[in-house]
Amino acid sequence: MNPRSVAIIGASDDPARIGGRPIASMRRLGYAGRILPVNPNRREVQGLQAWPSVDALPEVPDVAIVAVPSSQVLDVVKALGERGVPGAILFSAGFAEVGGAGVALQAELVATARRTGMRLLGPNSLGLVNLHTGFVGSFSSLAGIDNVSAGRVGVVSQSGAYGSHLVSTLVDSDVGLSNIVMTGNEADLTLGEIVRLMVDDPNTDVIALYSEGINDGDRLVEALKAARAARKPVVMMKVGRSEVGGAAAQSHTASIAGNDAVVDAVLEELGVVRAYTTEAMVDVVRLATRGVFPADNTLGVITVSGGAGVIVSDAAEEYGVPMPEMPTSAQARMLKMLPICAPRNPVDTTAQFINDPTLVKPFMEMMLTEGGYRSVLGFFSYAGTTAEVAPVLREQLAAMRAAYPDRLYVLVLRGPREVIRSYEAEGFSVFEDPSRAVAAIAAMGRFGRAFAMLPLAGAPQFGAVTLPAQTPSEAQSKALLAEAGIPSAPERACSSVETAVLAARGIGYPVVLKILSPDILHKSEIGGVLLDVRDETAVRSGFATLMERAGKAAPDARIEGVLVARQLSGGVECIMGINRDPVFGPIAMFGLGGVFVEVLKDVVFHRCPFGEDVAQTMIRSIKGAPLLLGARGRPVADIPALARTLSRLSAFAVAAGHRLQSIDLNPVFAMPLGEGAYAADAVIEINADAV
Amino acid sequence: MNPRSVAIIGASDDPARIGGRPIASMRRLGYAGRILPVNPNRREVQGLQAWPSVDALPEVPDVAIVAVPSSQVLDVVKALGERGVPGAILFSAGFAEVGGAGVALQAELVATARRTGMRLLGPNSLGLVNLHTGFVGSFSSLAGIDNVSAGRVGVVSQSGAYGSHLVSTLVDSDVGLSNIVMTGNEADLTLGEIVRLMVDDPNTDVIALYSEGINDGDRLVEALKAARAARKPVVMMKVGRSEVGGAAAQSHTASIAGNDAVVDAVLEELGVVRAYTTEAMVDVVRLATRGVFPADNTLGVITVSGGAGVIVSDAAEEYGVPMPEMPTSAQARMLKMLPICAPRNPVDTTAQFINDPTLVKPFMEMMLTEGGYRSVLGFFSYAGTTAEVAPVLREQLAAMRAAYPDRLYVLVLRGPREVIRSYEAEGFSVFEDPSRAVAAIAAMGRFGRAFAMLPLAGAPQFGAVTLPAQTPSEAQSKALLAEAGIPSAPERACSSVETAVLAARGIGYPVVLKILSPDILHKSEIGGVLLDVRDETAVRSGFATLMERAGKAAPDARIEGVLVARQLSGGVECIMGINRDPVFGPIAMFGLGGVFVEVLKDVVFHRCPFGEDVAQTMIRSIKGAPLLLGARGRPVADIPALARTLSRLSAFAVAAGHRLQSIDLNPVFAMPLGEGAYAADAVIEINADAV
Repeated sequence: MNPRSVAIIGASDDPARIGGRPIASMRRLGYAGRILPVNPNRREVQGLQAWPSVDALPEVPDVAIVAVPSSQVLDVVKALGERGVPGAILFSAGFAEVGGAGVALQAELVATARRTGMRLLGPNSLGLVNLHTGFVGSFSSLAGIDNVSAGRVGVVSQSGAYGSHLVSTLVDSDVGLSNIVMTGNEADLTLGEIVRLMVDDPNTDVIALYSEGINDGDRLVEALKAARAARKPVVMMKVGRSEVGGAAAQSHTASIAGNDAVVDAVLEELGVVRAYTTEAMVDVVRLATRGVFPADNTLGVITVSGGAGVIVSDAAEEYGVPMPEMPTSAQARMLKMLPICAPRNPVDTTAQFINDPTLVKPFMEMMLTEGGYRSVLGFFSYAGTTAEVAPVLREQLAAMRAAYPDRLYVLVLRGPREVIRSYEAEGFSVFEDPSRAVAAIAAMGRFGRAFAMLPLAGAPQFGAVTLPAQTPSEAQSKALLAEAGIPSAPERACSSVETAVLAARGIGYPVVLKILSPDILHKSEIGGVLLDVRDETAVRSGFATLMERAGKAAPDARIEGVLVARQLSGGVECIMGINRDPVFGPIAMFGLGGVFVEVLKDVVFHRCPFGEDVAQTMIRSIKGAPLLLGARGRPVADIPALARTLSRLSAFAVAAGHRLQSIDLNPVFAMPLGEGAYAADAVIEINADAV
Repeated sequence: MNPRSVAIIGASDDPARIGGRPIASMRRLGYAGRILPVNPNRREVQGLQAWPSVDALPEVPDVAIVAVPSSQVLDVVKALGERGVPGAILFSAGFAEVGGAGVALQAELVATARRTGMRLLGPNSLGLVNLHTGFVGSFSSLAGIDNVSAGRVGVVSQSGAYGSHLVSTLVDSDVGLSNIVMTGNEADLTLGEIVRLMVDDPNTDVIALYSEGINDGDRLVEALKAARAARKPVVMMKVGRSEVGGAAAQSHTASIAGNDAVVDAVLEELGVVRAYTTEAMVDVVRLATRGVFPADNTLGVITVSGGAGVIVSDAAEEYGVPMPEMPTSAQARMLKMLPICAPRNPVDTTAQFINDPTLVKPFMEMMLTEGGYRSVLGFFSYAGTTAEVAPVLREQLAAMRAAYPDRLYVLVLRGPREVIRSYEAEGFSVFEDPSRAVAAIAAMGRFGRAFAMLPLAGAPQFGAVTLPAQTPSEAQSKALLAEAGIPSAPERACSSVETAVLAARGIGYPVVLKILSPDILHKSEIGGVLLDVRDETAVRSGFATLMERAGKAAPDARIEGVLVARQLSGGVECIMGINRDPVFGPIAMFGLGGVFVEVLKDVVFHRCPFGEDVAQTMIRSIKGAPLLLGARGRPVADIPALARTLSRLSAFAVAAGHRLQSIDLNPVFAMPLGEGAYAADAVIEINADAV
């Protein structure tokens, strides 16, 4: 990202052409490194000495920009690699994105580069810009790159066109940028690696990420963890949330929610703020450049309009930012200074404030010290930008910020751009819409909590789990899980009706009878589960019924007999599962059984593995959680036991390796507190083809 | 709103003072009516002849602006009334909003005005501005009223300060205004009446409404109905949604959700689009000025960025705007014209489009004719505003709009304001953020559906219902409801254990036993309901148990005996209720019983009365509705019977009049289709104090 020299292969004398633009831009931005145009037909390009070929270059450049037709790219990459060039940016299109021969050509390109250890950005990439050094490895006009000022925000985009739209929006909001990278086809360098480069870049404090599809889940996760450790906030716009990922729809468990819920869960886990609109992205990025991330965020509001105070309060509740009241003693003093004010919080000073803006300082000081607010929002609208008010108000506010620099200051103002900028220059982030301001303030608190998070109790450690070659039967599945400390209801596999009768007597009535076959995964669909079997006669007739149903529904299935299990009662039906996400690996799911999961899709996801603390948080986060906490006169459920089981399941899923496709524990009975949690059914699916 | 003459009481020669501003503003805006300043100490005010008193005025003005201290307002109002002035605008503060003596003073003010038939706006109002006539009955600076251009949007605000912020935001978005009214204390003229004036105003097409609290539910409802009938879209921002209305928390039914859900339901019913942020308000208002409201809204998207296409698709799904695919034949023709395009919808033309903007016309024409889209969104970002592209693109688009003027056209562009304005002038609404654009497009569809709505089957007609003097017992309640066609499970009131045994035999086991007392409303709380009573012995012991429990829990209650009812099984437990909302009168509620209502707050509300069609829509709109529609292998429930019951309940609530406080039918069993729906419990609460 910071090359000392750059070769442009396919350099053009015309600054408007793809091979000419980077040169013209670099010279305009004052790039201090050496620019080496390569063009077989010209001795000079845009006033610079040109070289006929890669071989003819007088030195090995740090990076090469490749702006030649796709048919010539392979040769160029080969030549560059042989010269020992460490990296190349490939503008050319016509590779994997067009399918067919393009896919093969791209694979060859990567293989060629790897032979010499050269890294590639692209192909089909709009390239890379470093605003601090003036290095422009991009042919995008980027909304007139001259207007982009150097700053502390790094932009990574998987879409060239939308990335340019985003950059243009950031620039219009006076956000200064450090680097811009458009990843293109990600044949070699991927999103995760580029985010990692931004994390390591000393000029980048805030990372804005636009993604259409994640190809390297593990590397992205590592990069996002590094960003959190470096206290660099990441704002991510991941689009395509209305599409349900095809691969994840395979097993019953995962069909409940699309991939997008998994993305949400992973970003939440890693402290990334997800933006759903371009505006939200820009708002959060802009406020994050202030570098104030209050983990214990509270919001104090000072306003010249009672209505605005209500709007802000509504938004604060929506976004989960607490707005504690001012202490009563401070309220009394405020009322003394301004009898018509409403001093609770929001502190409504009414328009009287405009008549005497010097009141801002004492009011705000009370809010900062006695109210102790970590974030302060001042709503002054256009009254705060008039020639009479603005200078006094700005001075008053600036004094407060100087005295309490660790707080987050946001103003809602309307007025001439130069006045708004004068507030921004004093360290105040200005918004026009109060609700958007609150959303951004809430995001700063989320970053703060992510940065402050203490290491949680780790996931349980397992040795490697040996999975059977094929998808196991229910009994085998339960035995495997039991070894990992995941308990099932007491049960016995019985191959004959007589052993079933004996087993039921030993376990105690009522029992549940289930068909036992490695070939029948979803037993209830064929009527293979009988509940409430109350005596010996019922066991005998039930055994016969199950054999008959299995024989009819799945004549080729290997039938091993019947499973006799204790029927758990008094517990809350839950569901737990694992599904292998194509991007992020095994993902655990938890929900309440029955209507909650099937009708209401009330489930929560988390990347595996995780400890019991995380599992408890997951369990308590579902909408139906009150049912586990004693709602409607039920006993409080054994949430610690549920959490233990869920955490162990997550560790088991990782230890089981790539061949584990999914696990479905449905139902798991959460018994009353102290009595444990037991899986009543278990299905483990193996992907025999996985390597 | 359109006076031919105006008196200013307390007129000032200083154009910066409250009594001087209206005069200065009217003269600047060219108000053509007569301005009559009243000031006892001056013969001339701002160059106009002044009059010493109201009595001395040479004519009776259409309206008077009262800008005198609160202590003098009463005398002025009296004098104006005696001169026969039909209306007055009261700027002065110091009335009901300060409490105490102010409340009494305001009441006296209203009484005085009513004696002579004079209407009052305010007090404590920023007043009224008519941009078409230049009449300024306001002392607000309104962000420099000179910048506000006359247009078709009427603004009504209950907050002066926030209303001014809103006006300033609208003005910055180039939205022209017809009238601005700040309602102040609404001592006489209320929000509903002012909205009605806007509906009747020929200069107003779109109404923007900001409210902090509705005082006149009935008049507002009438005004909003009139707006719908006149096809004038209303966008309403109703703040304070995080507060739970105190009055509504009284009865069990209403405690489930705060008042805000009722506001939502009423606005939805009346076709009002509710805005939750200032920006959303401005977006919807601005697009609504185009006057295109497609009832059968579909969205076609043409974009130079695939990423933007995905963002728009995500937003369209979120806001419920269908995006059908282009017909395959048209897709084939598009691919022929531009091989690298993705023609499904979104139609992604890639940046190639910029090289040849003349492609827009044929592409868009195919979308309008063959795709048949009612709304079209074009994403061109900053590429659409360059000097090379803009003129061609604009011309191409304008030709399409001329040929198909009934469609809604929205563009996402970034660039210089004057270029954006040139597109706006051609009839294209320009947004910077694609997600916001989609939200506004969705709102136009909602207006369209509201305007197109055929009169639904009306509510059943009842004669007046005679409620008992006091809250009735369960049996009395059920009898009352049965007369209105709201059926309960078969049951009998029994005063002795022997009659209970006989009743149970007649009804058939199992039965439910319930304590029968007008003084015990929530029976289950004292253990006053016994389920699953299976034989005569159980009836006898159950009778004794209930008597004992009631005697202990409520020793002073009048005990009338025990209710013996059939125990319904196989039905889905629902809950229906009525609660009197202080603003909108009786509100019906429907939900599923048990966890759905208590844990998940999955309920729906509607103003009473309504017909069975509306009731069906309500029932089908809850999240748990699949349970009534056969989810999880259940029989399909008798939704027509449920709807009939709910509709009758709504009509009953209206016919019962003001003394009805609430009705709680919990549970109502929805039996399988064809078998009806029966209330198993009924509580009617009477407000004996209501007039």
